[in-house]
Amino acid sequence: MKVAVLGIGLIGGSVGHALAERAGAEVVGWDPVASAAGDALATGAVGAVTASVAEAVGGASAVFVATPVAVLPGVAAEALDAADDDCVVTDVGSTKRTIVERLDDERFIGGHPLAGAATAGVRHARADLFEGATWYLTPTARTRGTLYERLHRLLSQIGARPAAIDAATHDRLLATVSHLPHVLANVLVDQAVQGLGSERLPATGPSFRDITRVAGSNTAIWRDIYLANADALVSAIDDAMERLGAFRALLDAADGDAIAAWNDRARGDRRRLLEGDLAGGEVTELRVSVPNRPGVVAEVALALGHGGVNIHDMALYPAPDRSSGYIVLWVGGDGRDAEALLAPLDLPVARG
Amino acid sequence: MKVAVLGIGLIGGSVGHALAERAGAEVVGWDPVASAAGDALATGAVGAVTASVAEAVGGASAVFVATPVAVLPGVAAEALDAADDDCVVTDVGSTKRTIVERLDDERFIGGHPLAGAATAGVRHARADLFEGATWYLTPTARTRGTLYERLHRLLSQIGARPAAIDAATHDRLLATVSHLPHVLANVLVDQAVQGLGSERLPATGPSFRDITRVAGSNTAIWRDIYLANADALVSAIDDAMERLGAFRALLDAADGDAIAAWNDRARGDRRRLLEGDLAGGEVTELRVSVPNRPGVVAEVALALGHGGVNIHDMALYPAPDRSSGYIVLWVGGDGRDAEALLAPLDLPVARG
Repeated sequence: MKVAVLGIGLIGGSVGHALAERAGAEVVGWDPVASAAGDALATGAVGAVTASVAEAVGGASAVFVATPVAVLPGVAAEALDAADDDCVVTDVGSTKRTIVERLDDERFIGGHPLAGAATAGVRHARADLFEGATWYLTPTARTRGTLYERLHRLLSQIGARPAAIDAATHDRLLATVSHLPHVLANVLVDQAVQGLGSERLPATGPSFRDITRVAGSNTAIWRDIYLANADALVSAIDDAMERLGAFRALLDAADGDAIAAWNDRARGDRRRLLEGDLAGGEVTELRVSVPNRPGVVAEVALALGHGGVNIHDMALYPAPDRSSGYIVLWVGGDGRDAEALLAPLDLPVARG
Repeated sequence: MKVAVLGIGLIGGSVGHALAERAGAEVVGWDPVASAAGDALATGAVGAVTASVAEAVGGASAVFVATPVAVLPGVAAEALDAADDDCVVTDVGSTKRTIVERLDDERFIGGHPLAGAATAGVRHARADLFEGATWYLTPTARTRGTLYERLHRLLSQIGARPAAIDAATHDRLLATVSHLPHVLANVLVDQAVQGLGSERLPATGPSFRDITRVAGSNTAIWRDIYLANADALVSAIDDAMERLGAFRALLDAADGDAIAAWNDRARGDRRRLLEGDLAGGEVTELRVSVPNRPGVVAEVALALGHGGVNIHDMALYPAPDRSSGYIVLWVGGDGRDAEALLAPLDLPVARG
């Protein structure tokens, strides 16, 4: 089976690696930047490169369009023009309504893998990038069933978990759990810098560091995401402002009971969200106080690793002098195994 | 020198340990909960406990009030009534205007150490908790200079960095960098759960996990912080809503250039904030892709630790199947040392 990859960066390159290794596909690549196509060939992400979209697509059974969002609809339309009748064309863009509406073709299925935004470029591409990752697909009433089935099977073969979703719901959902958090991170940084005037900021705590970690993410990518999903993001912003306003009213009324109930609900809801999010059942948060001793993070990780406890998430909160602090760990199960494994290290552990 | 600690939890207990060890103080404790006083005595956080505030305070040169915020002003007032004329009384509450206005006494100085909110209880108390930590002090025009000087010296002796700040500025600053981030975390969780109806959440990305990490923090503590700092927090919320509105207008206008500039500014500002925040100069972010291999976090931490590279901050982003992902590290210097130390592990490293 011939598969074409148009746009060969981290995602496109990983699709290429994975389909060749795991589905035995013959992968042909094209990139709007000729040197990028050369890099992709050199790293083995694709087996061959072509000088045009039409050459890459001709005779292919499936086409993955993974260019930057701004040129994506044009490349996908060109691919549909050149593709055989029995060829499924999909994309990997972060928003879905615009492209799905524009490419009203029974061979096109919008797609969005939730994977790999951190390190860009084909040199970071790898066959297992999509292992276990949700890969949204947005079929419409026009979508040809045999092509949907083919795409679904290819994605399963490379380890992803295809999930069908309405394009509008997809965009609304991503606006809430991804795009709005990025906006809020930028807003908080802006507020801290602009709003405090000449006052020197204190050694800021983990809450500020965590909440602003994604501030100023790759501008070329995020400008396009914001613009492509503008209306869903505006709705999410309006929703957030309404909720902020409701909490503001509780503050104005000094309603301690309602504030407590609101806070308790958030704690329970977040736990449910993250436990539902991470496959494999219960996850427990542990807080390990670590003294001023080199290598203690490694000791903790090794102790848990040797005992077979999986660390799902970890954050290190150094004291302001950076030589002590605590480690927050999310581990599988109820945390008792982890506590027992950490006991020999004689570090205070709190289970939350 | 006799020092009294009123309210002996994590903070009060650590003050006790530190003043005894590092300042040679005779530390006497009192706690509103009798059993807590007993625990404090048993762990050595204080050298003696008393049955009343007056007994603890009598003859003391300094008094630290570290009870829960709700009872703090009352206990501090009682301490001032019982304290000698040559005795400084301070507190450790997270907001400062209310108590500073209420306790209009030349012996009272409001205080707030930025340390140790993660694990509660005297059993986690330790002498080095305040090492390198900013410890805000809010003297007023009435404050007696000799008592301020004494408190400043005691805090320096236990390793803290005392910083004088106007109480109103303190509360505004904390509203922005701590209280508002907690509110936004709750709002986002609420929005994700309530706003999406029956739609199942996807494997959420690191941005959502990071920004909601502090959602639903200890209700008893945070309800009181929100209430005590209500007006500054309302202002911070209004400010955030104004900035959200401004970004919303950019989206409405599809102003890509302004969105790009706004995002670029956030990236630069956050870097400046965090570099200013962490003592010791330049800090560089590294992203290490980690494959499906047990112990890899420990290997990374050990490789850097053996090479003398300090990890200031770390976050683990697992792939949805939890068996691979990437590690974000903030390390000292320009990151080249760290890259060289990680080279033998043959993991893709991106410097950003």
